[in-house]
Amino acid sequence: MEPSERGERPAGAIDDTFDNQANTLEHIHFDIFTLFPAMFVGPLGESIVKRALDNGLISICLHNIRDFTTDRHHICDDTPYGGGGGMVMKPEPIFRAVETVLNRQPGWQLAPEDAYVNLPEWNAGEPVSLPTGVPIILLTPQGRRLNQQVVTELSRYPRMALICGRYEGIDERVRSQLVTDEISIGDYVISGGELAAMVLLDSVTRLLPGALGDDLGAHRDSYSLGLDGLLEGPQYTRPPSFRGEQVPQVLISGHHGMIARWRREQALLRTLLRRPDLLARTTLTAADEAFLRRHGWPPTDEVGRQK
Amino acid sequence: MEPSERGERPAGAIDDTFDNQANTLEHIHFDIFTLFPAMFVGPLGESIVKRALDNGLISICLHNIRDFTTDRHHICDDTPYGGGGGMVMKPEPIFRAVETVLNRQPGWQLAPEDAYVNLPEWNAGEPVSLPTGVPIILLTPQGRRLNQQVVTELSRYPRMALICGRYEGIDERVRSQLVTDEISIGDYVISGGELAAMVLLDSVTRLLPGALGDDLGAHRDSYSLGLDGLLEGPQYTRPPSFRGEQVPQVLISGHHGMIARWRREQALLRTLLRRPDLLARTTLTAADEAFLRRHGWPPTDEVGRQK
Repeated sequence: MEPSERGERPAGAIDDTFDNQANTLEHIHFDIFTLFPAMFVGPLGESIVKRALDNGLISICLHNIRDFTTDRHHICDDTPYGGGGGMVMKPEPIFRAVETVLNRQPGWQLAPEDAYVNLPEWNAGEPVSLPTGVPIILLTPQGRRLNQQVVTELSRYPRMALICGRYEGIDERVRSQLVTDEISIGDYVISGGELAAMVLLDSVTRLLPGALGDDLGAHRDSYSLGLDGLLEGPQYTRPPSFRGEQVPQVLISGHHGMIARWRREQALLRTLLRRPDLLARTTLTAADEAFLRRHGWPPTDEVGRQK
Repeated sequence: MEPSERGERPAGAIDDTFDNQANTLEHIHFDIFTLFPAMFVGPLGESIVKRALDNGLISICLHNIRDFTTDRHHICDDTPYGGGGGMVMKPEPIFRAVETVLNRQPGWQLAPEDAYVNLPEWNAGEPVSLPTGVPIILLTPQGRRLNQQVVTELSRYPRMALICGRYEGIDERVRSQLVTDEISIGDYVISGGELAAMVLLDSVTRLLPGALGDDLGAHRDSYSLGLDGLLEGPQYTRPPSFRGEQVPQVLISGHHGMIARWRREQALLRTLLRRPDLLARTTLTAADEAFLRRHGWPPTDEVGRQK
């Protein structure tokens, strides 16, 4: 999929801390719009995302959609037209939050004391033009499915907005007028877009140069893509024997060529057994194909996942 | 996929607070094994999972794998045999944590002051028999893909263990000797199994009776499954007009039959445009098929997602 209509890099909106020469950027700013900002506390405080935040590779502003309501009860949802169960997220608070934030520099947040009572001016009836080059992504089961290719595509934007819908529903006009992309993390139902946003954030952050630390090259990633690559094969560390199960001899042989070949074959085998659909999208050598044929590929019948 | 070999309900291990008559249980206990328990703090403290915890529908014990190490530096990973980047999670701490916990009543946790220094006895060399009926699930990109059918299958177990791998790798013997199931939430790379475990937990919890509250029937779910069902069509709430875009007349007609038909057609249309692959797995009426045919289904060529 091509970058959205707003896919051009903004003129002037982004300062020179962004280096756009490489295929991936040196910094991404995420604006996350949610009714449950506290959900992000743990996941942002650990692991690779925390390190990327600490090292300035990414920055994140959490915006509570509810802060952008002005009514007494801070209502963000309402019953659906036409009846039926569940509540639907109202358009105004989402439009107000996104339009207010995206027309300001990355890093701007509504001060807590200004929530509800001292919002920047905004007119519900008047369309607001938004900066180009900033995808506004709704996390929803109706979106295109996230995969490593989409992750790579997203990692080229210096700024993006993630809107966490509650999966009971969101007013259609948010889709038709505000959102530039819709993404689903998989064919299952979860309670809201927050976990999906965290998954997207984590997967994109990993692609930034330096995010993985020194001990992990980009090479390693290609093995666990599960998409352009193959499923990763078995890995072993000490002890050499655990409950009678030995580390395969080849791995302690010191013969780099044989190790590489064994690993490739194990990856091929695991992919053949578990996700044969991925093989069609993989570049296979003649040796790969010969190896796979000896293990029953291509299948005469559909090959199910074996375990 | 059939339940694992350990798929029988344990005799005596589970007390009578579990009602096994219905298709779904009234309570599920999750044992989560992770190196980053703090990641779960936010997600478990909000929304449907929090409500389910508060109402006693689910219980969760977070087990820090590192607590089950006895060496001075509490080492949980080591370099891979055969070389290459990244670190591999060692087998012993994981085996020790899982075998210790699962052979105790649901709810048992290592007391914080006992971590490292006062662990229950355990013999690295001796296989430990584990209770039947408790799937031990490794979250990994090499697993079978999570979808709503898998979620439903898992929701029938009164207790399950989730092991959060770090995606750089986990010793193969954890797979071959300990784990009974491997699940992937999608074809993308994230830093660890923690977010995947949260997604699984959330999706399974939603299926427990009472988890969604009174205003959401099971009916609604079938619409957003994205698998057995169709993608959900547009939804609207107040205001009736937003920036010139009106709520469709039919939704304010009060004619329930017409509303139901419109919603069905919108769901069919959205599924046709965005995820035509789902139509093959949907039960379609003659009216559905006629409607779809008027919109170009089945495709003469492959129908790409339109947006």
